Amino acid sequence: MKLLTETLNSIEPASAELREQATRRIESLTMPHWALGRLLDLAVDLAGMTRSLEFPVARKTVVLMAGDHGIVAEGVTPQPSSVTVQMVHNFVAGGAGINAVARSTGTRVVVADLGVAADLSDLVSAGKIFDCKVAPGTCNFAKGPAMTRLQAVASLEAGIGLARRLAPETDVFGSGEMGIGNTSPSSAIVAVLSRQDPGPLVGPGAALPQSRLAHKAEVIRRGIALNRPDPADGIDVLAKVGGFEIGGIAGLALGAAALRKPMMVDGFISSAGALIAAAISPAVKDYLILAHGSSEPGHRTMARLLGKKPLLDLGLHLGEGSGAALAMPLLDAAREVLTGMATFESANVTSEGVR
Amino acid sequence: MKLLTETLNSIEPASAELREQATRRIESLTMPHWALGRLLDLAVDLAGMTRSLEFPVARKTVVLMAGDHGIVAEGVTPQPSSVTVQMVHNFVAGGAGINAVARSTGTRVVVADLGVAADLSDLVSAGKIFDCKVAPGTCNFAKGPAMTRLQAVASLEAGIGLARRLAPETDVFGSGEMGIGNTSPSSAIVAVLSRQDPGPLVGPGAALPQSRLAHKAEVIRRGIALNRPDPADGIDVLAKVGGFEIGGIAGLALGAAALRKPMMVDGFISSAGALIAAAISPAVKDYLILAHGSSEPGHRTMARLLGKKPLLDLGLHLGEGSGAALAMPLLDAAREVLTGMATFESANVTSEGVR
Repeated sequence: MKLLTETLNSIEPASAELREQATRRIESLTMPHWALGRLLDLAVDLAGMTRSLEFPVARKTVVLMAGDHGIVAEGVTPQPSSVTVQMVHNFVAGGAGINAVARSTGTRVVVADLGVAADLSDLVSAGKIFDCKVAPGTCNFAKGPAMTRLQAVASLEAGIGLARRLAPETDVFGSGEMGIGNTSPSSAIVAVLSRQDPGPLVGPGAALPQSRLAHKAEVIRRGIALNRPDPADGIDVLAKVGGFEIGGIAGLALGAAALRKPMMVDGFISSAGALIAAAISPAVKDYLILAHGSSEPGHRTMARLLGKKPLLDLGLHLGEGSGAALAMPLLDAAREVLTGMATFESANVTSEGVR
Repeated sequence: MKLLTETLNSIEPASAELREQATRRIESLTMPHWALGRLLDLAVDLAGMTRSLEFPVARKTVVLMAGDHGIVAEGVTPQPSSVTVQMVHNFVAGGAGINAVARSTGTRVVVADLGVAADLSDLVSAGKIFDCKVAPGTCNFAKGPAMTRLQAVASLEAGIGLARRLAPETDVFGSGEMGIGNTSPSSAIVAVLSRQDPGPLVGPGAALPQSRLAHKAEVIRRGIALNRPDPADGIDVLAKVGGFEIGGIAGLALGAAALRKPMMVDGFISSAGALIAAAISPAVKDYLILAHGSSEPGHRTMARLLGKKPLLDLGLHLGEGSGAALAMPLLDAAREVLTGMATFESANVTSEGVR
């Protein structure tokens, strides 16, 4: 609890002064007013987060958190939990979607076990994954809380610990996750925090047939009614209907914000983690960038609650951090525009009519 | 005319067989069905264009075509034509928005003078720009045709020539442009080809105040009524209401298609060039990728006519090829996903429930 408290105490809002300086610099550059649109908004955001007009973004790390979910016993996904550990091995071998996308954008991928229901000690002792296992899978939140409050704090602190440990070699964090069943806790989180019925927020996840969506929504509805998570208490929501990897993502967001480093939020599950972080410390939102709009229907509500517009909208629904890795080059472009363009004065370009 | 005819004769539709092979390969990879959405559509498109599952995309070249416009005499833009040549110098010095974005994505930028109303012989003799000048600016299309049919063909052949010349060092072309006043011919082109009144298709371009939009639309409406371009004849539309750099872009698209190489289409003006190319040879559309949705209102109609959905939607309205350069990393990601991911079989991942 000490690490969490210390982290929360060191999160401050982004710098309004640096945002203003970045805006003034952009207005001096050789282009019509705000002609690079949201790329310029992004440059302003990054300057405000990092307190620098020459914000570093070169070293990108997606932290891929894995965990299993007791809720799968309710038939909310057609895939068995064993796929989680299979995919962890695939990540380590470099064969998954996140690995491919990350290679293409110069993004490092690190894998952490937050709560996989399998023995991963071989990968841990080989130094291939971080061991942050809180427990081998959550409990079934349709029957009781997903985890204890202590476990929720442990998952948050694991994420904070990863942020701190990776910070010396990371300019920008990205969130990623793997966990069969984890769209269910994510849908529950957005339902609780938006104070809405889960029905319209529930989607197919990896591959649930349309005919089973009503059942999935009913399981989530029941879990919320049974556990009564308090929307004003992010840790309570995480404990009662969340997941270990979701807590890890929330912790990573808190840790990144405390370090004044940006975190690129991947899709639906990562946004659930971001929502937990923002429920615990609203200022964390200043350090979050929403990578893409997931095709999972509840993601729009998540984006609204986070107050963010996704950078990309490509119908992605893979998770793993793939969307975060895919959006990373936009940060390099934002930096290069702010630092590498000529001004109207330096280039002798007439600003008549455009300023 | 020989080069144009020869080029048109060698344009063939994309390969349905390679598209099918790419689709089958994607369905074997370790992810839920089509979980990387439009990135996978892009991979299929690229395989079909290049006839290869290992399509090359590493070497990216934005060809930035510059030209001036007689229509500026009608007060359709608050910027003087002299900004075109000023910006050409800025491009060559590396200080413009396109230079910054292109540096960030590993994209080469080459500049070609298609019709700048200034002497650029110093830059030509220094080897800094390609000399493809058809004439020093178009005529005012509110008073008569923008150019002769021979000039239109010359601008198309200049673009084809650039595609051929750059092909040995280019896997993917990007289009770019600079030309004060060039949203007016572009709006005229989309009005003619969509058979609509220009009113709703006209926007502010670089910086025209809202109060002047009706005047701009009226100038374009008058130009179309006077010249009566034939929507069934792309060369006629280009000659009567187009521009030299727009013809160059159309030629680049035709040349790229004949070479079976993709062309990333930038924004509003580039899409006007792409529309001219598609009006001349509909199969060229198979080789075009629409980089982003411009904030210029007529761009949606252009995208519809091209049958394309833009990859990015970031409120860009700079032109220069900046959006094309910004979207380039998506091609690398598409390639790496198709070539660098494990299959369910190779990675021993259960495909139960997701295939």
